[in-house]
This record gives sequence, structure tokens and C-alpha cells, in this order.
Amino acid sequence: MALALKDAHDVRGYDPDAGARAAAAARGIAVVERLAELAPADAVVVATPLAAVVPTLEALAPIAGDAVLIEVGSLKSAVAAFAERAPKRVRIVGVHPMAGSTASGFIAADPALFRGRPFLVVPTVRSDDSAMAVAGELGRALGGVPTVCSVSVHDRAMSAVSALPLAAAVALTLTASRSAGVPLAGLAGPGLRDATRLASTPVDLAVPLLRDAAALREDIAGLREALAAIERAIGDDASLRALLDRAREARRELEG
Amino acid sequence: MALALKDAHDVRGYDPDAGARAAAAARGIAVVERLAELAPADAVVVATPLAAVVPTLEALAPIAGDAVLIEVGSLKSAVAAFAERAPKRVRIVGVHPMAGSTASGFIAADPALFRGRPFLVVPTVRSDDSAMAVAGELGRALGGVPTVCSVSVHDRAMSAVSALPLAAAVALTLTASRSAGVPLAGLAGPGLRDATRLASTPVDLAVPLLRDAAALREDIAGLREALAAIERAIGDDASLRALLDRAREARRELEG
Repeated sequence: MALALKDAHDVRGYDPDAGARAAAAARGIAVVERLAELAPADAVVVATPLAAVVPTLEALAPIAGDAVLIEVGSLKSAVAAFAERAPKRVRIVGVHPMAGSTASGFIAADPALFRGRPFLVVPTVRSDDSAMAVAGELGRALGGVPTVCSVSVHDRAMSAVSALPLAAAVALTLTASRSAGVPLAGLAGPGLRDATRLASTPVDLAVPLLRDAAALREDIAGLREALAAIERAIGDDASLRALLDRAREARRELEG
Repeated sequence: MALALKDAHDVRGYDPDAGARAAAAARGIAVVERLAELAPADAVVVATPLAAVVPTLEALAPIAGDAVLIEVGSLKSAVAAFAERAPKRVRIVGVHPMAGSTASGFIAADPALFRGRPFLVVPTVRSDDSAMAVAGELGRALGGVPTVCSVSVHDRAMSAVSALPLAAAVALTLTASRSAGVPLAGLAGPGLRDATRLASTPVDLAVPLLRDAAALREDIAGLREALAAIERAIGDDASLRALLDRAREARRELEG
């Protein structure tokens, strides 16, 4: 984000890690030595691991002044709860750019990552019209497509889009390797590789995603029921065909 | 296979579809107009949809002479059962090149498809030493790596490697699209796309794979139990981390 914005905006960056600050400075980002030096500003973007989002908002609240606090966490309910108890004049908006890669660190930063991708804007009780406008401008400045949705819609969809596929890949990997009876290394084709790829997600990213996705238990129950429906349809080609047709149709819609 | 073998061997091809015969002829394959014209030969390779493998072997048995009948179906138990009742002098070997693409038709044929990939050789009760040697030579001539395994080991592994990932992708696609609450088109990133890709398998290929995979019911039960284990671990980070560590390790082994 900083790389994409720095030419047209006055961007300052802060990271608690000196190495990250040096890497950002080497790519032309002005860096500051303390979180407090980010204010005053029009907006402060909080882009930390999920567990650090609310503590960072808490640290920024007393010093934010007129700056809109914008956070990019992958789940929003904890931010919504913080907004309910935040100091009165602090403005907080959640955003979620639907873009990413498996790489990490400033060295992997790509200012073009957000172009043409949905940029979800998720209001809290502390999002006024001008704060929402700043968040929308941020999304457009990155080349994204701003779309407003509620905390509950956001977190519900993220469970289905992120946490459930991760859980499914983990379960499939464990089951396939246990039940094949032979080493899978030579036998696994692109189908199994694609279907299990998310099981390689770093554990430190995977744990909070599975733990905090509000609807995941319900979604896993739904997935288990869908598997049971396939199991029941084995031996009844018409039912099996109907299930497969519906899945192909849903897969086509998912590709957009 | 025909494209890969035709320069070093006397290859003739037959397909019941005249268009397929013409496409093969256009790429330099000698084609014949009737199945019976494939004999005499050292080997006849049966490469049909799974449901047509045994009927084609039945049609070839009376005219095979000394030709080894080699079939490339993705499951072997029906071939093994046919071999038990086949005419006494007919020799039958199953093979399964672990290679493929989502494209179909002669136009997509690629003689390099098998290079460096496992080429499973699966004996029946009608596979003598010389028949097994012919099957192994076929695999090596294609650039593959011949590996002998039993019908039961083969079909068990194929359930885990092919049928189970397909069932998982179908169930995940149906569940994610039902539970997200919003259209997934814009939100689906590479994770969900990869995890659901097999749900796009043509229904005519998917139905027999799910119906005939001997161990699929058991494997689906295993997958449902693995999902239940993840569900139970939500809220207990140490258990969740242990599951995720095991899945990452299994995923690494699968990549070989």
C-alpha cells in the first residue's frame, strides 16, 4: 500500500522491527521511529497480524487526532467490538483488500497487488461519512474496487472463502496420506496438489484464522453434511449426477 | 501414447468415432477401420472411458492371438474380475500412467505427457512374465517410470488420490457457495479456487470415478472425522497447532 501511494501522497511508515523499517526506507518509504510519529495525518492504516490489530488501534486512539484509523485485518468482529468502547472522537473503518500472495515481508511487497481486486470497506459504529469516503478513496488510489459490506456479512463470507477451504485442505491432506496405503509422493497429480495446497499455510497464520472465524463450526458441519450427501449418492447415478451438476454450476459462478 | 511410440514401433490406431480416426491420421498415426484389424500385434492398448474397458477387452479376447491386452483404466477391480473368467490363452495387464491434463480429444494429445511420471503396472491372474515385460517396456518407451503394484493397493491409493479429492472439492464448492451469504465471484482468491478446481471435472468422468472407487465410502468417513477433529480443536490452540503441523508435514511428503 505504501509503495502504491507514496508518489501521490505524503506517506510515512512505522514497524516495530528495525529491519522492516530499513527495508521500507530502501524502497523509498519515509519511516518514523515511533508509532506516535504517524500522527497528525488524514488516515493511519493498521496492517498487522490479526491478534495485534485491536491493541494497535488502542495505542493509536489517544493520539489519532483527526486521522481516520483504517485497519486491514481479515476478520472484523473484534474491531467492531473495540469501536463500541473506543474514545468518542476516534473514527475507525475496516477495509479488506481481496488480494494477497503466499510471500511475506517487505521484500515481497507489490504495489500492483490490489489492482482490479475487490476492496471491501466495513463500517464500524465509529465510521462517519467522511471516514467512509477516506477508506473508499484509499481503495481507489490502490486501483481496487471499493465495496461496502457489514461486519457480519464480511466475517460470514470470510469464513466460507478463507477458513473453510483451509480446514478442508488440512482434513483432506491428513485423510489422503493416512488412507492411501502407499507413499503419495509419486502418485499425487495436479488434482490432489491443488486441493491440498492450503494445508501448507504457515501455522502462525492458520491458527488465528481457524480460531476466530465466527461461522467456521457451522461451515464445517455443512461441509460434513455435503460429504455425507455424496456418500449417500454413491450407487445412485442420478443423484450423484445432480450433485455434480450443482457443484459445477457453483464453481463456474465462483470464477465470476 | 501412439504419438510417443509411432516413430520406433509399428503403431496402428482404432477409434469408433471417424472424427477421432481422422484427427489421429492427420498427426501421422496409421488408423484401421475395425477393432479386429488391430491384431496381430505384440500388444493392444485399450484406452477407453472406464465403463468401456471390460467390454472392449471382451471384444478383443477372441481375436487377440499372441497380443498382450493392456488397459489404462483408472480403477482395476473390474479388469481383475474379467481376467478370472477370460479365455485361457488371453493375457491381460493393467497399467496406469500417473499423468494427465484437463484437456481431452486427440487435438490435446501430448507425446511428452508421460515423461518422468510413475507408470503403474498392475498384474491380473492372466499376466505372465512376458506380458509383464511388455507392459514395463511400454512404460519405459513412453519415458515413464514403471512400478508394479497389486489391484487392491492400486484401487485403494486411487480412491485417496483421485476420488476423495474430487468428493472433497464438490462438497467444499457446494458448502462455500451456500454459506457465504454473498456472491463468491469477486471474493474468491487463489486459495478457494485451487481447493475447488476439481469440482469442474466433467460429470461424465466424475460419476464413474466416485461410483466405482472401492474405498471411497470409507475415505469420506475418514475425511468427515478429520473435519470433526478440526472442529473440536477450535478454541484449543495447542491441539489446533498439532493438527496443522501434521498436515503441513503430510503435504510436504505429498510434494515428494
